Amino acid sequence: MAGVCILDEFEVHKNDEFLEKAEKLKPVLHRTEVRPQKILKGGEISGFPEMVLKKDDSVILDFGDHQVGYVTLDLASTGSHQDAPLYLYLRFAERREELDSDPDEYDGWISKGWLQQEYIHVDVLPEKLALPRRYAFRYLEIKVIDVSLKFSLVINDVTVTAVSAVNSGEIKPLKTEDPLLRKIDSVAIRTLQNCMQDVFEDGPKRDRRLWLGDLRLQARANYQTFKNYDLVKRCLYLFAGMPFNEGKISACLFLEPEPEPDDTYLFDYALLFVSALADYYEETKDEETFADLYPSAMKQIDIALDYLTDDNIIPDHSGEFWCFVDWGDDLNTQAASLAILIYSIRYGIRLAEYAEDQERITMLREKEEVLKKSAVEHFWDEEQEMFVSGEGRQVSWATQIWMILARVFPREKSHELILRTIDRNPEVRILTPYMYHHYIDALLRTGEKERALEEIKRYWGGMVQDGADTFWEVYNPDNKNESPYGSALINSYCHAWSCTPTYFLRKFYE
Amino acid sequence: MAGVCILDEFEVHKNDEFLEKAEKLKPVLHRTEVRPQKILKGGEISGFPEMVLKKDDSVILDFGDHQVGYVTLDLASTGSHQDAPLYLYLRFAERREELDSDPDEYDGWISKGWLQQEYIHVDVLPEKLALPRRYAFRYLEIKVIDVSLKFSLVINDVTVTAVSAVNSGEIKPLKTEDPLLRKIDSVAIRTLQNCMQDVFEDGPKRDRRLWLGDLRLQARANYQTFKNYDLVKRCLYLFAGMPFNEGKISACLFLEPEPEPDDTYLFDYALLFVSALADYYEETKDEETFADLYPSAMKQIDIALDYLTDDNIIPDHSGEFWCFVDWGDDLNTQAASLAILIYSIRYGIRLAEYAEDQERITMLREKEEVLKKSAVEHFWDEEQEMFVSGEGRQVSWATQIWMILARVFPREKSHELILRTIDRNPEVRILTPYMYHHYIDALLRTGEKERALEEIKRYWGGMVQDGADTFWEVYNPDNKNESPYGSALINSYCHAWSCTPTYFLRKFYE
Repeated sequence: MAGVCILDEFEVHKNDEFLEKAEKLKPVLHRTEVRPQKILKGGEISGFPEMVLKKDDSVILDFGDHQVGYVTLDLASTGSHQDAPLYLYLRFAERREELDSDPDEYDGWISKGWLQQEYIHVDVLPEKLALPRRYAFRYLEIKVIDVSLKFSLVINDVTVTAVSAVNSGEIKPLKTEDPLLRKIDSVAIRTLQNCMQDVFEDGPKRDRRLWLGDLRLQARANYQTFKNYDLVKRCLYLFAGMPFNEGKISACLFLEPEPEPDDTYLFDYALLFVSALADYYEETKDEETFADLYPSAMKQIDIALDYLTDDNIIPDHSGEFWCFVDWGDDLNTQAASLAILIYSIRYGIRLAEYAEDQERITMLREKEEVLKKSAVEHFWDEEQEMFVSGEGRQVSWATQIWMILARVFPREKSHELILRTIDRNPEVRILTPYMYHHYIDALLRTGEKERALEEIKRYWGGMVQDGADTFWEVYNPDNKNESPYGSALINSYCHAWSCTPTYFLRKFYE
Repeated sequence: MAGVCILDEFEVHKNDEFLEKAEKLKPVLHRTEVRPQKILKGGEISGFPEMVLKKDDSVILDFGDHQVGYVTLDLASTGSHQDAPLYLYLRFAERREELDSDPDEYDGWISKGWLQQEYIHVDVLPEKLALPRRYAFRYLEIKVIDVSLKFSLVINDVTVTAVSAVNSGEIKPLKTEDPLLRKIDSVAIRTLQNCMQDVFEDGPKRDRRLWLGDLRLQARANYQTFKNYDLVKRCLYLFAGMPFNEGKISACLFLEPEPEPDDTYLFDYALLFVSALADYYEETKDEETFADLYPSAMKQIDIALDYLTDDNIIPDHSGEFWCFVDWGDDLNTQAASLAILIYSIRYGIRLAEYAEDQERITMLREKEEVLKKSAVEHFWDEEQEMFVSGEGRQVSWATQIWMILARVFPREKSHELILRTIDRNPEVRILTPYMYHHYIDALLRTGEKERALEEIKRYWGGMVQDGADTFWEVYNPDNKNESPYGSALINSYCHAWSCTPTYFLRKFYE
């Protein structure tokens, strides 16, 4: 399934005051110069300075860790005078394995423009070639497509100016003796750091955009680590500052050439603005921001409530890119969409309480009860003792998890449900660390603290064992080439929504 | 044969005074904005403004004539907001036919870096994309490798800022009623114009360098048309300002990053500096330049004379890139090298006369006679009544032509020889317009003025019939895919040494 939303009647209503506040909070990025740590491949090619490459020679430089930044190549020539343009191919990879695949064979449904490769002519050597684009990578392959019979390329140096809104030196080590947990925590922090740029990006390789679902998780990890409240505040104002049509908050924002919302409404992402604002306020007690953004949060609940049928359920939109929940073509999201509405109403009540908005408290409490009953009535399968979703009565992990997080059942019954889910292991599984986050959350909510830790070690630890320097957009231990896009080549291997182990470890285990 | 020369012991002796004079003569280029005249291919794609392209769409823009310059693409997007980098492929072609071939299949021996193609990512649209490199082309193919499911590319405009040291508007039309001759003349002038940049380039696509053999012919055409004496003067000073080892003038100079000679000695090119200086002085009577450069010219003759064997011939270097004469793996250049030495001595005598350098006049006259005799003795085959060359006693067009131009025989006998050559049509033919120039010259020298005109119409007219906007580096009417480089894809289709019809037509036929 090509997961895109295109809205025909798309009208943006910008709030200039909010956007100005967001603009003022734009961070000055930290810049760190990083040089290659190792040469992984290059045959008989020696190292810097004066690495000499002839036609068809190539090297792979290893920058030691995942970097987000701008690359400069210090190039010269040797032999006779350069008598033809140097023709170079560059390929950037977050993981070493990516370089073993052929980008020309990519045939996924999202743009191959995301593949980090460049063909470059250099007419005059020597040249300090400062590439204008930003890349996310640990490995850089440099291949000489051609020089000439008379000269060879000399690479004197390659540097990357790594950028981030934050500096990981500020963070205290995790209090644990377990090396795997320490590693998981540090990889999570690196992931978060490399996604914190002008905004919280979803992934610095791709899409390099501010997605609301990612922001909420990044903010939670940030509160336990960098505590960069301004960047969260900036992002909340950006979302609230560019609603469209009835006041919907977009699932995703563009910053360039100027701030604009994507014409994408995701039912769950819009609702999760409520929880993101509640988290921010509880962390900062920032009254002004709360007062500014409270109406936008409530609006998302009102819009969602309007989708309810007379039976108090959300119609099934699983064929569309409308309620994300998790990647996976087969996942039915109808039941989860109702659960996420209930979950968001609970946060809405907290916000209304902070606002002392009695009328809304009353309304939301009533709705919460009605919808919880409706959820059980429509989606609980008494025989299977599992929640089902959609006309096909699909049993998925995601549906159980969101119903638990929605607190549709009392805690003990939720506890039984999560254990039953683990035991039965429904075929429609979890695909992304984003959904895995909610699974860990559900385990913690139902008192399975030890199991939650084991699952963090198993899942995120699995990525670490598989060589992750930063956590990945998609991780399926049973199918490591899994991709929602038709090809793992386009997957992002530093992805915001995967950074939450540091949140869990520091909030619940220190 | 890969035709390159690499000198192991290469010592350049720069003459700063000469190089400063050259630098001061650097031209300010004329800049002309040119827009596409036609869209040749684009399926249902409409024209500017707002030409819309989706993934895999392509257009071919026709700029109406051969251009040398800098391209700017005015790009935007349509549909939803741009949500992925635009990935574009651009290919520039001097001839429409080039676009039907696959550059990936190029396997010639000179660098594929010369193929005029670019892969470009554009992260943020709209963008006025000003390409930094200079291209030589009439046709530009723009292919969208990828956009995304949410947006398409809009091309609002494409412009080229064409550059040249001269402006063709300054030149009077050729006085003739013959439309083919008028066309040949104008194509020749366009060729010359597009090769006149910071220096006289050999070809604006490739090599974009100042070659001495080309300069001599360009200067002759220039004297009949643009009369830009400063550019010739600049180039003469550049050559004389960077001799190497014993004082040899390089066959070719680089201007970037700073002026340097190529480590290439071509026996014939170095000698032709003498004729180039004589032409310049006879045209301008520029005494200062003559006085400066006279010693450099004489030095080239002295160096050439040093190569003579005791038998007064030049050893056969045909296996090396040492005496150019013409492209063609099979051409033996031994006899022609002696002929070119004799030819250059004649010009050397003229220079010595202008300098009133009696001693040299005497010496050169003696040498001229000795070498003419030696040429006949060693290379004239009385039985065949043709000149032969090398151990294999090869009979080629080039050898006969240069012997005629060297005036080894009296005019009438030369006249018989050229007619016999035409009649016998030796198998080792002429490959380039550079050698064709000397053939026309030989016809004129022997009084075959009408036939010379017919040959101009047949040869350069053949290129015109084949669609030439500018004259080509290589033209073999019998094999239109001929290339000295292993692939016609890399041939230059605007090449300085092909521009001389305008010289002949205006000097001898007006």
